[in-house]
Amino acid sequence: MPAERPLLGAIEAGGTKFVLGVGHGPDEVIEQQQIDTRDPATTLADVNAFFARHEGLAAIGIGSFGPLERDPRSAQWGHILATPKPGWSQFDLAGAVARAFRVPVAFDTDVNAAALAEARLGAARDAAVSVYVTIGTGIGGGVIANGAIIGGAGHPELGHMRPRRSADDHGFDGICPFHGDCLEGLTSGPAIKARWGESLSHLPTDHPGHAIIAGYLAEMCNTLRAVLAPDGIVLGGGVMGTPGLFERVIEAAAGSDGGYFALPAAQVIRRPVLAPVSGLAGAFLLAADLL
Amino acid sequence: MPAERPLLGAIEAGGTKFVLGVGHGPDEVIEQQQIDTRDPATTLADVNAFFARHEGLAAIGIGSFGPLERDPRSAQWGHILATPKPGWSQFDLAGAVARAFRVPVAFDTDVNAAALAEARLGAARDAAVSVYVTIGTGIGGGVIANGAIIGGAGHPELGHMRPRRSADDHGFDGICPFHGDCLEGLTSGPAIKARWGESLSHLPTDHPGHAIIAGYLAEMCNTLRAVLAPDGIVLGGGVMGTPGLFERVIEAAAGSDGGYFALPAAQVIRRPVLAPVSGLAGAFLLAADLL
Repeated sequence: MPAERPLLGAIEAGGTKFVLGVGHGPDEVIEQQQIDTRDPATTLADVNAFFARHEGLAAIGIGSFGPLERDPRSAQWGHILATPKPGWSQFDLAGAVARAFRVPVAFDTDVNAAALAEARLGAARDAAVSVYVTIGTGIGGGVIANGAIIGGAGHPELGHMRPRRSADDHGFDGICPFHGDCLEGLTSGPAIKARWGESLSHLPTDHPGHAIIAGYLAEMCNTLRAVLAPDGIVLGGGVMGTPGLFERVIEAAAGSDGGYFALPAAQVIRRPVLAPVSGLAGAFLLAADLL
Repeated sequence: MPAERPLLGAIEAGGTKFVLGVGHGPDEVIEQQQIDTRDPATTLADVNAFFARHEGLAAIGIGSFGPLERDPRSAQWGHILATPKPGWSQFDLAGAVARAFRVPVAFDTDVNAAALAEARLGAARDAAVSVYVTIGTGIGGGVIANGAIIGGAGHPELGHMRPRRSADDHGFDGICPFHGDCLEGLTSGPAIKARWGESLSHLPTDHPGHAIIAGYLAEMCNTLRAVLAPDGIVLGGGVMGTPGLFERVIEAAAGSDGGYFALPAAQVIRRPVLAPVSGLAGAFLLAADLL
């Protein structure tokens, strides 16, 4: 009989909600709860109440909204960095959790956590190198190689690459406060609403917006293929729920790659299999990796 | 007294020349020779004659022009793939060397080898994540994380990302046979000559080409920063020898990044320190890693 696995805590800290979990891993969750994200003190009081119900936690993993400091060499490790969310800038999220429970705490971005889960347990299980990208209110992602998150001093900001502008997409400057028409400024949910007044799934199927958004996401995929030669690119998030979008992205990526890459677009570009809990699953994995 | 280090062979296999080396590592090269790249049989006869002069080789590392198969899971491992170079398509380069000398052979791209050398011994020694890019007759690069080459089924094709076109760069379709105006089609040495009749270093300092090329390379750097958050991006190759270009790239990258990334452009973007032998140095490291 195998020894009992240690009890772990997991937090997917999002900008609008926190998902909390306790269990022995993503495959053995004992309790899970969702709370609204409010100011740090109120939110953390709920977090603490949840975990206080479970004795013997061995470690807690946090996958958080960013920007954040994930570099353990930095004195700012565990902090949220400059963010428009009231009260959260410079908040020491990992430190607050560690002080409350006196256990080791792992801290990374929500998208790095989701990328790790999809790479180890999900859509990119067979991949030596994979990328996870979520396209929703914002755009973010993470890169995994041989089961580990790839990161230097910062963390990827996949939403802020600049795709070539589509000739059909004129008269729109993009909504990113930092870069205007970067990928997030052009293809996030709010960018789609700002441009056409509706979410992509509410636009008629013959609306040009479908091809425009698919084209930008296909460019992103081909850029990732050129930079990393990944075996898998996993596309998640609310915008990807638009019927037909996934197929359009593959078609556009294959149509503009010149047949140049080692693997075909249809093999590389994949749907997530752990959504909507890939972030929480990744937070469990981050916690387990500490032990 | 330390034991004597094993004797290693190294090959930087380029499209116009092969550089051959024997020694105990990149810091202790005993003999080095350069030969012209001709057809495989003639070239390999010279390679074999060079290494035959040295008894007791423990391993040979090869950093080669591509495209090539670097995935050890593939039956094509060690082969050059489809290339316009006469005779080289499907040539089993690693196999030919292994059969001649009956030693373990490591095989990767020349740019992955150079990236490894700059990351372990050169300009990116302090970096957890780094990228090496060479801008010359072609454009290629490699990604290193924690001292290891990042790669899936294929290898990066950094030259084939598509930068946003500059408004000042009109009337030129690019020279890439696969993608037209991808990065290589716009900013490689031959693309510069095709557009303006001269290499960049021969154009007057007030020629608009300087800003156009710097702008495309800055976009490439910012894309790499968005995808990987590297601590270092090392820019090598003949085009980067243009006086003032390095400084222009940093200025353009900082000017268009929106202040958004963790590290400033001037800290991330670096000159190689091992050039012109970074590829050969990397081939020695590949060989040493086999033992």
